Amino acid sequence: MGISLNEINMYKNFDELAQDILEMAQEFFPGKLLFLSNFSNNKQIILKLSDKDTDISLSEGMSIEFNQTVCKRIDFKQNKPLMIEDVKNEPVLVDLRDMLEEANIHSYVGVPITVGTGEAFGTLCAVHHQESEFSNKSVKMLQRIARMFSYYLELERLAFRDSLTGLYNRYFLYKYFDHYSVKDGAIFFLDLDGFKTINDKYGHEKGDLILKETASRLELFLKQQQTGYAVRLGGDEFIVVIEGVTSKEILTEVSKSILTLLSTWDQNMHKSQLSVSIGIDTYTSKEKVDVNSLLKNADQALYRAKSKGKNRYQFFS
Amino acid sequence: MGISLNEINMYKNFDELAQDILEMAQEFFPGKLLFLSNFSNNKQIILKLSDKDTDISLSEGMSIEFNQTVCKRIDFKQNKPLMIEDVKNEPVLVDLRDMLEEANIHSYVGVPITVGTGEAFGTLCAVHHQESEFSNKSVKMLQRIARMFSYYLELERLAFRDSLTGLYNRYFLYKYFDHYSVKDGAIFFLDLDGFKTINDKYGHEKGDLILKETASRLELFLKQQQTGYAVRLGGDEFIVVIEGVTSKEILTEVSKSILTLLSTWDQNMHKSQLSVSIGIDTYTSKEKVDVNSLLKNADQALYRAKSKGKNRYQFFS
Repeated sequence: MGISLNEINMYKNFDELAQDILEMAQEFFPGKLLFLSNFSNNKQIILKLSDKDTDISLSEGMSIEFNQTVCKRIDFKQNKPLMIEDVKNEPVLVDLRDMLEEANIHSYVGVPITVGTGEAFGTLCAVHHQESEFSNKSVKMLQRIARMFSYYLELERLAFRDSLTGLYNRYFLYKYFDHYSVKDGAIFFLDLDGFKTINDKYGHEKGDLILKETASRLELFLKQQQTGYAVRLGGDEFIVVIEGVTSKEILTEVSKSILTLLSTWDQNMHKSQLSVSIGIDTYTSKEKVDVNSLLKNADQALYRAKSKGKNRYQFFS
Repeated sequence: MGISLNEINMYKNFDELAQDILEMAQEFFPGKLLFLSNFSNNKQIILKLSDKDTDISLSEGMSIEFNQTVCKRIDFKQNKPLMIEDVKNEPVLVDLRDMLEEANIHSYVGVPITVGTGEAFGTLCAVHHQESEFSNKSVKMLQRIARMFSYYLELERLAFRDSLTGLYNRYFLYKYFDHYSVKDGAIFFLDLDGFKTINDKYGHEKGDLILKETASRLELFLKQQQTGYAVRLGGDEFIVVIEGVTSKEILTEVSKSILTLLSTWDQNMHKSQLSVSIGIDTYTSKEKVDVNSLLKNADQALYRAKSKGKNRYQFFS
């Protein structure tokens, strides 16, 4: 699970750290424009620039389509820097050349920033309005600085994750509603049916496997939906937050998908019945969301779903 | 709980990272000798030097008493650098002057490295065989580099800690015996008596408080003993490892101390009876320690202690 812009905004000292990173990098690239970027939702976002007063067309918060950015060409798997000392003489970039020249970028060096098990976070780059020569040493320093920064990111990231499944944790959920209460949306309170039996019968290790599998199915589903995120509250309780949707019709469709998603299990995995019950509540942008009462309402709806025979969803109201 | 040398030795990539740190710092202090140091067991240990071929009397692995090191004079609380541009004209250091000059250190700048909630890990320093002038900018860079490094340390540290109590976790215990099987010693398998009742009766929050209090009592005790460390295995199970001791007489004394330590509880905290049962097994340096069987043996002894009426210790053999 990568790091989204929403998440970055919750990090302590992100701004100061980003500033530190760029100032350190600047020492090795005097006169160049340095920037930090993030990849999320199929876009590159410029998080921070070393200098806002620049003749290069980049600005903080700017978002660039993947097919229009050089940074996407960096080899993340090999964790290698990408160096272009002269944009107009670089055959690989022929499709981006005009765009780069228009942005007044005539030379470029970028290094990957990864987190977790090598997931792409974004890039640390230096660009210039003229051709440049980049020394091996300065590029090596850029890589070191990026590596240090990725430790910082990884540390912040851990605070918001459930260690078993890698999903967001309860702390994230609370912080999220503290920070972002602008859109409408809905929360789904999920509780696995029959999980306790499996855990008791086949042991914690099997139980943990099921929780991990549940998490990765939810993640894949939400990725396809292109909205929302999943949280593990603890035990076999999960929350799915869907943003921008409060229509009961659509939420019913989502519920049905989740029910299907979590009712088909490999027979090898266990022979007991495993499914999910769901309680749903919605929230609006009109008032500050109170997470506690939102959870309480959804939990109440979940309780009704359980009472009515499990493997179903219920709306709070 | 600080970071000990044993722990550092288990960190992934510590050596490469330390190298990175020093090379980055070297850029801002050309010609100076850079070093990273750690504080533990009332000593400063030189972890890494930027250059081993130096005319300054410092070497990797060297250990210096606290009262004989400048680094200890750094203000960790305020997180401030300490700068001495000319050792012989520095009135505060009058008692260390001869020693520094003997080591051929005539100027010094050091910044603190902290972890967790501000605990002193050690220092990042530059020294020189002549007087120096340190620019504000280069010292600022040194601070930035130290800060980045502390994020790395914090991240590594987390992997070895129990998140509730801050004690070492099961993973550390296994890694420890993988790395250090040289000394004789003993393990104490602790299980709180009556914990489950309190947890059920007064709730998890009260239970967690008791686990934290148990952890801090064990830590304080081991600090006084100046040997060994404590691990939280999970739930209310703890391990105490005592190194260099296999004598039953001494281990009996230790057990009695732990029994006393964990049987006196504030009446306000709860009214139920709370004490501890202990199973003990020893290991020798003669053979590779098999942690699993060591734990199994100690657990068996613990079981006997429980059967015999709790609040007591038993040796495996």
